[in-house]
Amino acid sequence: MSDRLLAALRAQMESCGVDAYIAPNSDFHASEYIGEAFKTVRFLTGFTGTTATLVVLPDRAALWTDEGYFLQAKQELSGSGITLFHTGHSDSPTVADYLKEGMPADGLLAGDGRTLTARQALELLDSLGGQARFLDRDLAGELWKDRPPLPNAPVWVLSERYAGEPAEKKLAWLREQVAARADAHLIATLDDIAWLLNLRGGDIAYNPVALAYLAVLPDRALLFIDPAKLDAQVRAHLDRLGVEVLPYEAAQETVEQVLSGKRVLLMPERVGYAFYLRLEAAKAQIIEGENPSILRKSVKNAVQLEHLRQAHQKDGVAVTKLLCWLKTGMEGGHPTEAQIAEKLDTLRLGQEGCLGPSFITISGFGAHGAIVHYHVTPESDVPVEPDGLLLLDSGGQYLEGTTDLTRTVVIGSATAEQKRCFTLVLQGMLNLSAAVFPIGVCGRHLDVLARGPLWSNGLDYGHGTGHGIGSLLCVHEPPIGFNWRITARNDTAPFAPGMVVSDEPGVYLPGRFGVRLENQLACREAETDGFLRFETLTLAPIDLDAVDPSLLDARGREQLNAYHKRVYEQIGPFLTEEEQHWLREATRPI
Amino acid sequence: MSDRLLAALRAQMESCGVDAYIAPNSDFHASEYIGEAFKTVRFLTGFTGTTATLVVLPDRAALWTDEGYFLQAKQELSGSGITLFHTGHSDSPTVADYLKEGMPADGLLAGDGRTLTARQALELLDSLGGQARFLDRDLAGELWKDRPPLPNAPVWVLSERYAGEPAEKKLAWLREQVAARADAHLIATLDDIAWLLNLRGGDIAYNPVALAYLAVLPDRALLFIDPAKLDAQVRAHLDRLGVEVLPYEAAQETVEQVLSGKRVLLMPERVGYAFYLRLEAAKAQIIEGENPSILRKSVKNAVQLEHLRQAHQKDGVAVTKLLCWLKTGMEGGHPTEAQIAEKLDTLRLGQEGCLGPSFITISGFGAHGAIVHYHVTPESDVPVEPDGLLLLDSGGQYLEGTTDLTRTVVIGSATAEQKRCFTLVLQGMLNLSAAVFPIGVCGRHLDVLARGPLWSNGLDYGHGTGHGIGSLLCVHEPPIGFNWRITARNDTAPFAPGMVVSDEPGVYLPGRFGVRLENQLACREAETDGFLRFETLTLAPIDLDAVDPSLLDARGREQLNAYHKRVYEQIGPFLTEEEQHWLREATRPI
Repeated sequence: MSDRLLAALRAQMESCGVDAYIAPNSDFHASEYIGEAFKTVRFLTGFTGTTATLVVLPDRAALWTDEGYFLQAKQELSGSGITLFHTGHSDSPTVADYLKEGMPADGLLAGDGRTLTARQALELLDSLGGQARFLDRDLAGELWKDRPPLPNAPVWVLSERYAGEPAEKKLAWLREQVAARADAHLIATLDDIAWLLNLRGGDIAYNPVALAYLAVLPDRALLFIDPAKLDAQVRAHLDRLGVEVLPYEAAQETVEQVLSGKRVLLMPERVGYAFYLRLEAAKAQIIEGENPSILRKSVKNAVQLEHLRQAHQKDGVAVTKLLCWLKTGMEGGHPTEAQIAEKLDTLRLGQEGCLGPSFITISGFGAHGAIVHYHVTPESDVPVEPDGLLLLDSGGQYLEGTTDLTRTVVIGSATAEQKRCFTLVLQGMLNLSAAVFPIGVCGRHLDVLARGPLWSNGLDYGHGTGHGIGSLLCVHEPPIGFNWRITARNDTAPFAPGMVVSDEPGVYLPGRFGVRLENQLACREAETDGFLRFETLTLAPIDLDAVDPSLLDARGREQLNAYHKRVYEQIGPFLTEEEQHWLREATRPI
Repeated sequence: MSDRLLAALRAQMESCGVDAYIAPNSDFHASEYIGEAFKTVRFLTGFTGTTATLVVLPDRAALWTDEGYFLQAKQELSGSGITLFHTGHSDSPTVADYLKEGMPADGLLAGDGRTLTARQALELLDSLGGQARFLDRDLAGELWKDRPPLPNAPVWVLSERYAGEPAEKKLAWLREQVAARADAHLIATLDDIAWLLNLRGGDIAYNPVALAYLAVLPDRALLFIDPAKLDAQVRAHLDRLGVEVLPYEAAQETVEQVLSGKRVLLMPERVGYAFYLRLEAAKAQIIEGENPSILRKSVKNAVQLEHLRQAHQKDGVAVTKLLCWLKTGMEGGHPTEAQIAEKLDTLRLGQEGCLGPSFITISGFGAHGAIVHYHVTPESDVPVEPDGLLLLDSGGQYLEGTTDLTRTVVIGSATAEQKRCFTLVLQGMLNLSAAVFPIGVCGRHLDVLARGPLWSNGLDYGHGTGHGIGSLLCVHEPPIGFNWRITARNDTAPFAPGMVVSDEPGVYLPGRFGVRLENQLACREAETDGFLRFETLTLAPIDLDAVDPSLLDARGREQLNAYHKRVYEQIGPFLTEEEQHWLREATRPI
């Protein structure tokens, strides 16, 4: 199939004088999760991994993907003739290297300018030497006859009762921020738009947002969105806000007209290159900068925080019920990873105000627990039979906020090595949650607190220790996190009271087992002026069957016992008598 | 006096058409310590603080200095009419702000281009809007009739026995590094030149280096230095290396001729603007980059490390003798801070191979201990009478390497609050020294280990937790350190085995007391591949009279006891019987 499609694409390229075509698996908003309509690389090549960039030259083609998808890509691309490269690996060429070698210096590169961010395109053209030209054309889309339609989930208004702040106030604040630097602000990040307007949608799996763009001027605000998604209530809300509704497809063209000649603040990392080209054509002056809403949105207000505590209580009840069942109810046979995930999702959905999971539930037993982003499939599913560790990473979208927690559970009994790994991870999680630090400190300065116990034993993990979390928005929310290896999209801002972040160290022994423990934290003021600390929000027992108390330090033991006391007090009342009985034992002091 | 001088300077300015004159207290090498001949601000204004920049306009003048010198500047400049500003304070204008307001946009700024670094001058001219011009002329120097001569201490060859590596090899390595990027490399940093050529000098207090510049080309190396400093042995050494000797004063002019049209690698932060202007005039292409020697020099070889251990044993004997005297020998009367500093310096100089202190000994009693960079003067000197804490920060230059250690000692007895502060600082120092971490980690990622115990109690300190240390070179050596608040000159590189760094948390209660504890650490490979750890080099007892064991965690107690056992074993044999007896008690397990 890919042969025929690539041949057709090459014919198109030739007829347009195009020397190279680039297609990332991206939507128009640099979203973490993308819909079916945006899986262009899958359409062209059959590769089903989500992270991928395809480059097609007249005589060859190459695909870049991450470590995590490499084996899968190798299988799925076998026989296609497409060369496979590791993104970011030193022994793989970069996309720019490959293009530089494969096209003339003043050649024509084509792609869908909506799916490439302005930053990606600018950097790419820059590394090609500055003479290459770009044709903004979705050649792949033109071949895609049965392309799925864009999602059209209804949009709804998140009441101020949950948002904690009227959208009017946020818009006014944003206009003030923009006024100091620009005449207008163009936003393509879906969670920023949702937060700003107190709107939620359902266009992206797990992230309750709607496909849209927003342009904010001093006296106008233009929302580009499919009007079919808006009911009368939403329309009235937008009217009250003075927000005009325009068709999603008309965004680029309208922006070119409306923002012509203006100073436009935008974030090149999160705005499509198509907009950039339009604004350049319209002689707009582009002011590059982060969306002011990113930092403001990460600071949850008192109403959001209070609701989030409630969401965690509900979430803790669902998870505790599952853990009790796992630890006591399995005499009748061993459920599989998928059955456990399903049961957890069902328990969570049973909680009032829960709209669904905040990401796909990870339920990995034994060696599957060592695969950081393992997602059970019918082919991979196994029963959880003694003895082994089950890693459960899940979360919910509640009207009251977004949760994310991980528990690793002993099925049967744990080996001394498993207990050692578990206890080191636990010590790290507890260390980080107890941090007190002055204003100005970022996550990267604290990461060692979580990793230290593992590092001291020659162990580590290949992911960040934590990420910011939205409020009924994305479970991965910039700009905060814990990661001493800084990446572009997280851990770039100092902590402030109201920020919510995950604390999730782990250890993974490939082919054997994995341990991860994750609590969600809220940053708040500490006792001394100028210092901050964390409040632990998550409420679910830590499996004492996996703890070796001799490996916890005195403070860690105290923290664990105090935490378990809290879990029992706050979750117990919502359980059955049997569950309560189990929880009392599961949260006993050690 | 300053009135008359400033009037004369202004007359000079007028006759040259100069709109503003800038004079920093800097030598020609951006050195940390500067000689008498470079204290231009003191000459012009009478202000004796070392950190200062003076700007003179036709009708006014202003001086910038640090927090630490502000009060002193206020007193010394009283009545001078010179406005005083805080460097880096948000309520003080910057030098650029002041110049922008005080001179025409296309005006003429003058200064000694040897004392301004290229980076300083370029940034200054850039923030003035790009139209201002610069006159490289030492107008202040022209008025300075009794200017002290440049220092002329003899230069000597550090034998390979101590350097651990022949200078030939370092030069060859440097040429390889440069060849990949440039035709030549210009070095103005005195410690890099000393390290590279295995030479030492005595032109700068505490730093055994000689005033010099070095230009390295593929087939030539030019050392600009006063030839009177070189004896036959040094000349033979330089001949063997193929290094040509040229007069120090001819450096700028010669560089202009020799490097004309070439690609010249230089570090604008550490090379005078005068060179930059000359190279521009000679159509050289300036390649901005760090001196490769900075990173390489920071990694000590096995010979240097083994010698450094010996230096620390000697240093520990001197310090332990002093501590024993302080704790047991004071019945006959209470010595003053200055007498104690002098006794310590004498004890240290009595050690074989000690060439002198590596910085001015800090001996601060009571409230003086809370002044981070306190230097006792005849006016400030006080006897150390019970009860109080004495802070002693000192180090030595040995043929075997450079030491730096701090001990805080109880005179009489300590209060519970003093013990609490001391023990938190101790816990922090021990935590950091026990860190194990993967390759790639920088000091800023580990700083929390030292600060954490203080932060948890709402305390902190306003300096870095540590700095790199040279090998018979500067006691503050870039590029490593521990400082979560990153500064330009330290903590910019990940750790590597062989790097030597200080670990010195503290706590300072102004007007009351100060605590600082400092051990020197060497980075080495940990047991697990890919991980690093530290070895503690410093050997001197920690005053148990100030330790509250209940505030140390179990690991901290173990570390302290193991450390004290080592101190007793390695220092004891070099003490008198009485001192040994005292040390045994002072290093008892707790």
